[in-house]
Amino acid sequence: MSQSFDIAVIGATGTVGETLVQILEERDFPVGNLHLLASSESAGHSVPFRGKNVRVREVDEFDFSKVQLVFFAAGPAVTLSFASRAVAAGCSLIDLSGALPADQAPQLVPEANADILASLKKPFQVSSPSPSATTLAVVLAPLLGLLDLQRIHVTACLAVSAQGREAVTELARQTAELLNVRPLEPTFFDRQMAFNLLAQVGKPDDQGHTLLEKRLVRELRQVMALPLLKISVTCIQAPVFFGDSFSVTLQSASAVDLAKVNAALEDAPGIELVEAGDYPTAVGDAVGQDVVYVGRVRHGVDDLSELNLWLTSDNVRKGAALNAVQVAELLIKDLL
Amino acid sequence: MSQSFDIAVIGATGTVGETLVQILEERDFPVGNLHLLASSESAGHSVPFRGKNVRVREVDEFDFSKVQLVFFAAGPAVTLSFASRAVAAGCSLIDLSGALPADQAPQLVPEANADILASLKKPFQVSSPSPSATTLAVVLAPLLGLLDLQRIHVTACLAVSAQGREAVTELARQTAELLNVRPLEPTFFDRQMAFNLLAQVGKPDDQGHTLLEKRLVRELRQVMALPLLKISVTCIQAPVFFGDSFSVTLQSASAVDLAKVNAALEDAPGIELVEAGDYPTAVGDAVGQDVVYVGRVRHGVDDLSELNLWLTSDNVRKGAALNAVQVAELLIKDLL
Repeated sequence: MSQSFDIAVIGATGTVGETLVQILEERDFPVGNLHLLASSESAGHSVPFRGKNVRVREVDEFDFSKVQLVFFAAGPAVTLSFASRAVAAGCSLIDLSGALPADQAPQLVPEANADILASLKKPFQVSSPSPSATTLAVVLAPLLGLLDLQRIHVTACLAVSAQGREAVTELARQTAELLNVRPLEPTFFDRQMAFNLLAQVGKPDDQGHTLLEKRLVRELRQVMALPLLKISVTCIQAPVFFGDSFSVTLQSASAVDLAKVNAALEDAPGIELVEAGDYPTAVGDAVGQDVVYVGRVRHGVDDLSELNLWLTSDNVRKGAALNAVQVAELLIKDLL
Repeated sequence: MSQSFDIAVIGATGTVGETLVQILEERDFPVGNLHLLASSESAGHSVPFRGKNVRVREVDEFDFSKVQLVFFAAGPAVTLSFASRAVAAGCSLIDLSGALPADQAPQLVPEANADILASLKKPFQVSSPSPSATTLAVVLAPLLGLLDLQRIHVTACLAVSAQGREAVTELARQTAELLNVRPLEPTFFDRQMAFNLLAQVGKPDDQGHTLLEKRLVRELRQVMALPLLKISVTCIQAPVFFGDSFSVTLQSASAVDLAKVNAALEDAPGIELVEAGDYPTAVGDAVGQDVVYVGRVRHGVDDLSELNLWLTSDNVRKGAALNAVQVAELLIKDLL
C-alpha cells in the first residue's frame, strides 16, 4: 500500500461537499482514487479535482470496500442509511451531519481535542461538529486554562448558506425585489429575509430550542470535555450570504487577565486575532479563509470577570469542510 | 392658560424629530403653538403638522420663554449648548441625546419608572433613554418581580437608521452595487455593510466599549433602579434599515416560572407577546408600531434559571420619539 488513500465523498454536489473536494486538492491530501457520491438526483453531475472533472455517482450502488475513508457531507438521513455499511466494509468515516451519537463517533476539532484519537478503534468513526461548535471550540481551547469558566453566552448570527444554495438564491432574489420596489414573495424562507433578522433557524421544540442550538450545546460540551458547562445560546439567521458571526461572553469566577488572553489567542493555531479597536467581519475577513477571526476582546462594562469576544468564520470552509479534512489528516497517520 | 401647551422641537428635520412631530399629531397631544427648530443648515425646511407645513427655524435665535416644553432631538452638542438657556427661561425639557447627567435629567421610561416624576422640580428636566435601553426597560419592568435577577446579557442588533438618513442611503446604495456586480465604494460606513454584520457601532474606548454600550448599561441601571446590576452588552450593526432586534438572556438565582413570565408579558403595557413557536421580526412586526414585540420566551438548554427572550422594536418610534412623547404626556399633568 502506498502512502495514498482511496477516498469517497458523499454529498459531493452540496456547498460543503464541493468545498471539501477543493480543500483535499489545496492541501495535497494523499488521495489515490476519489469517488464522489450523491443521491440519484445529483448523480451524473461532475466536480473538478486535480484538473479533471470527476463524475458523481449514486451512493446506493457504491461498494465501500473500495475506499479506506469516507466523508459524509450530506444530511443526517444519508449518514444513518450508509454509515453502518461503510464501517462493515472496513472503511473509516468522518460524518459532518451530526447524525451519529458521541459514543459511536465522537466530535473532533483538531485544535481542541485531538487527544481523543488515542482512544478510537479502526475503522475510525469521527464526527466533525456543526460550524458554530467548531468555531467556538477553536477559540475556547487556548482560553480554558486562563479562565475559571462558569458560563458561556453565545448569540450566533448565521449566514444563509448554511441552509444550502436555495437559501442563497432566495436572499439575493428578495433583496433585488425590494430594491426594485416589487412585491416580495418569500418561498424558501417563510418571511422577509432581506434587510431583516430571523430569531431562529429551523423549528423549535416544545421547550423553544432549535436543533442547531441543542446541537451546539451538546457538541461543544463534548469537544471541550466539560459535560456540565452552562452554555446559553441563540442562533439567529442574518441576511448574510457566507460567514457566521458570534457575539460571545465568557463568565469566569475571577478577574480575567486580558494580556494573557490576547497572548494565548495570538499563539493559538487556527485563529487570527484582529488588533484592538478594529474588528473582523464575515464578508471582509472570514470568507474563504482557514482561520477563525477574533476581535473586540474586552472585559464587561464594570466587570473584570467577564470576557467578551466577537468571532467570525467561514461556515462552509473553516466551520465544516476544512475541519473534516483536518480530522482526516490526523486519522490517516494511524490508518496505514 | 388653556389646556394646551406651546412646544418646541429641536432637531425637527432628523429621523427622530420628524417622527416625534408626527406622533404629537397622532396622539392628539395638546399642542398650542409648535416651534420647529434646527441648526442653520436645516432651517428653512418645513415639516407637516395638522395639515400645514411648519417652517423650521434656527435654534440659535429662539426665545425659549415662548414655550412651556422643549424636546431636544438633535445631538448631544446641541443639548449641551441650549439646555441651560431653556431651563433659565422656565421651560421644561425632554432630552433624547443622552447628554445630560442623571442627577440633572433622569432617564424615564413610563412603563418602567414613572414613579420618579414625584421627585422632580419645575421646570422639569427629563431624559428619554437610548432606543436599546428604552426597549429593554419596557420588557424588564414586568419581569423584575418574577426573577431573582443576577445578570443580563444582551446582543443588540441595531438598524442603520439609528445613524441617520445617510446610513440608510448607503446601505441601499451598497446593496444595489453588489447585486449589480459593481465595485463597492463604502463612504458612510468604513467597510461593506450590505450582506454583512459590523461588530461595533461607533468607536470603542481604551477598554473596548462603545459609547452606545456604556450608555445602555448606565441608563438601564438607572431606569430599573438597580445601580449594581450586571449587564453584559454587545451592540452590533445589522444590514437592516429600520427596527432593532435583541437577543437577551436573564440569569436568575432560581428556576424561572415561564407561565408567570408569559402572563406578565401578556398583561404589561407597551408589549406585544408573540405566540410560542413563532417570533417577531423588525421588518415584519416592529417597524411603525408603538409596542416592543417579544418572542422566543424560553429557558436555557438544561438550565431552568435562565430566561431567554427575543425582542424587536422600532428604534425611531418606540425606542425614541414615542417614548419622549409618552414622557411629555406624564409631564404635562403637573405642568399647569
